[in-house]
Amino acid sequence: MTEFTLLDHQFMTRAINLAKKGRFTTSPNPRVGCVLVKAGKIVGEGFHVKAGQGHAEVNALVQAGMKAKGATAYVTLEPCSHFGRTPPCAQALIDAGINSVICAMVDPNPQVSGRGLAMLNQAGIETKSGLLELDAKALNVGFIKLMKHQVPYVRCKLAASLDGKTAMASGESQWITSPEARKDVQKLRAQCCAIVAGADSIILDNARMTVRFSALEAAQLGYPDTELRQPVRVIIDSKNRLTPDLALFNDLGEHAPILLIRAAIENVHQWPHFVEQVQVKMQPSGYIDLPALIALLGQRGLNNVLVEAGKTLAGAFIEHNLVDELILYQAPKLMADNAQGLVSMPSLITLDEAKKLTFKDITMVGPDIRITAVFNH
Amino acid sequence: MTEFTLLDHQFMTRAINLAKKGRFTTSPNPRVGCVLVKAGKIVGEGFHVKAGQGHAEVNALVQAGMKAKGATAYVTLEPCSHFGRTPPCAQALIDAGINSVICAMVDPNPQVSGRGLAMLNQAGIETKSGLLELDAKALNVGFIKLMKHQVPYVRCKLAASLDGKTAMASGESQWITSPEARKDVQKLRAQCCAIVAGADSIILDNARMTVRFSALEAAQLGYPDTELRQPVRVIIDSKNRLTPDLALFNDLGEHAPILLIRAAIENVHQWPHFVEQVQVKMQPSGYIDLPALIALLGQRGLNNVLVEAGKTLAGAFIEHNLVDELILYQAPKLMADNAQGLVSMPSLITLDEAKKLTFKDITMVGPDIRITAVFNH
Repeated sequence: MTEFTLLDHQFMTRAINLAKKGRFTTSPNPRVGCVLVKAGKIVGEGFHVKAGQGHAEVNALVQAGMKAKGATAYVTLEPCSHFGRTPPCAQALIDAGINSVICAMVDPNPQVSGRGLAMLNQAGIETKSGLLELDAKALNVGFIKLMKHQVPYVRCKLAASLDGKTAMASGESQWITSPEARKDVQKLRAQCCAIVAGADSIILDNARMTVRFSALEAAQLGYPDTELRQPVRVIIDSKNRLTPDLALFNDLGEHAPILLIRAAIENVHQWPHFVEQVQVKMQPSGYIDLPALIALLGQRGLNNVLVEAGKTLAGAFIEHNLVDELILYQAPKLMADNAQGLVSMPSLITLDEAKKLTFKDITMVGPDIRITAVFNH
Repeated sequence: MTEFTLLDHQFMTRAINLAKKGRFTTSPNPRVGCVLVKAGKIVGEGFHVKAGQGHAEVNALVQAGMKAKGATAYVTLEPCSHFGRTPPCAQALIDAGINSVICAMVDPNPQVSGRGLAMLNQAGIETKSGLLELDAKALNVGFIKLMKHQVPYVRCKLAASLDGKTAMASGESQWITSPEARKDVQKLRAQCCAIVAGADSIILDNARMTVRFSALEAAQLGYPDTELRQPVRVIIDSKNRLTPDLALFNDLGEHAPILLIRAAIENVHQWPHFVEQVQVKMQPSGYIDLPALIALLGQRGLNNVLVEAGKTLAGAFIEHNLVDELILYQAPKLMADNAQGLVSMPSLITLDEAKKLTFKDITMVGPDIRITAVFNH
């Protein structure tokens, strides 16, 4: 077990907080932060903002300039050793004369994991790894899942009363949760790579499924609006029921791509340029094959997926054990048992078959609570 | 606004913690603690254990003996001024030569409120009130509600999955929540004066509805088992369906009284000595008049009532706005919408009619959470 000092912890915490600033922009790249320290003082720091732009280490080196020589680098992720859209960071650290490198976690990609540290070691730079590893992993659950398992990390967002109801028997559902909770959902959306919804709920609400960045506090963003990107909207429309007049297809300048998931490509309508029709195989039951869809999203590099669907589609994802994490907003209300339920999972018969989770976090959001729980499968 | 010092806060906190020790025993009396302080040191302390036994002030005075002279008394509730089963505490404090009295709250009974302080003032003793008042009120929500409104404080305990389900469609329900949560319910029961249940669930589970004190940690009790008392079991059996062979009527030495709530007294069965049949009027709908039942419990001095019922009876209590507080144990499970719901409230049609609450506390209990929320009515 490598020993770390209290100061090491403090500098890595700073690096993790820097990495978090990239949470609305780095996708599909990981969120990474870097702090350069010499004689107990920070001489440079940076984070990765956006794919194609400088990595965290390079941004920190630029800020430090000549002061980087002899410094210790705290990085939340092992420095890369390969040429991608930018040159390898390990080489940049070597060239700058860095003395030692402490990283929170090694690269989760099994094909390159450890290579960055090896390159540094070969250049005579001391390296350590594993400092605040759990916090660093939490930054990049999607990136890590995709690297290790070739599928995205899937969150399912639901909202209900305390007795698990989403609408009165009449269908009345606006609003069960508070404005604060609905604003919190915008933040959740903004942090994911793709939002998955079903045609039913799109037609019902004429929803646009974009992030209203105006609903987020400027202070929460931490960088210019120009860097923000909309998640890809993945709309399951196996029966080709959507039409181009829906609000979804009205680009208000968001440049939010749409993947229309279909059983068969249709050529009846003229779709806007940001719409791509994708054919996914059907299950014998007549539904879209959801595991195939999830695999497809992984192939597209969409590592952080948010399912925002009604009880049938959300239930189907959960029933197939395709969801990693549940985000449940609960309003302090009781709507009674003739109101509409939260998730449909027709295959569940015995209590033993109920889907089991583990609570990870419960936070007040205005008058409501937000429960985060991970599935045990 | 009366000013209190940091030391005042510390001594009153001690008095409140002492009062809490009576939470399983004082019913129908309030939980009260008292600390006597001279020259910055505690010279005596006590709490009320049980109706008919010494009040907190008297227990503290006995412990202090001669040292009580000139001391300051910190009491969580205004000292009484009247002869009940014991002589007035205000007089005892005067007789002991107490110098000043600080209490957390005045007596909630409008007929005697302020009289204890007046009696002390007339004897030349300085008094202050209002220190940690909210904490002191939380000790005695039932006692206060009964004194002010002549009805008990009613809690409704429910347990469900995250999607608000209490049993699979088949009826399978053992167990949704964890052993830790079920143990926590024992503690909840032990602190109330009466438990209300319906004949249906008694027959279904053959439940005894007593407190298993063995499930509580000895350390949580804080005094000898001999002082523990079982809550009154109030069983609504309007159709006279219960029979004396049920486990409910088997006294295992708990001496737990039963009130059988009936539309008409029946003389068919021979009931054990601890069973009392009580007639409560019916509503035109054919159900027991629940407001009349709650008023009856108030008349009996049962100030802290726990409803542990199925979805129909619990729903009826909530529908009639008779519940003050919801205690909801949520297991981290999803059981899907064909499972059985939490509460029936047939009169709710619009979302505006949904019952609204405010979250007060959320605590992990083993793998589950316990949500405490108060109704907004």
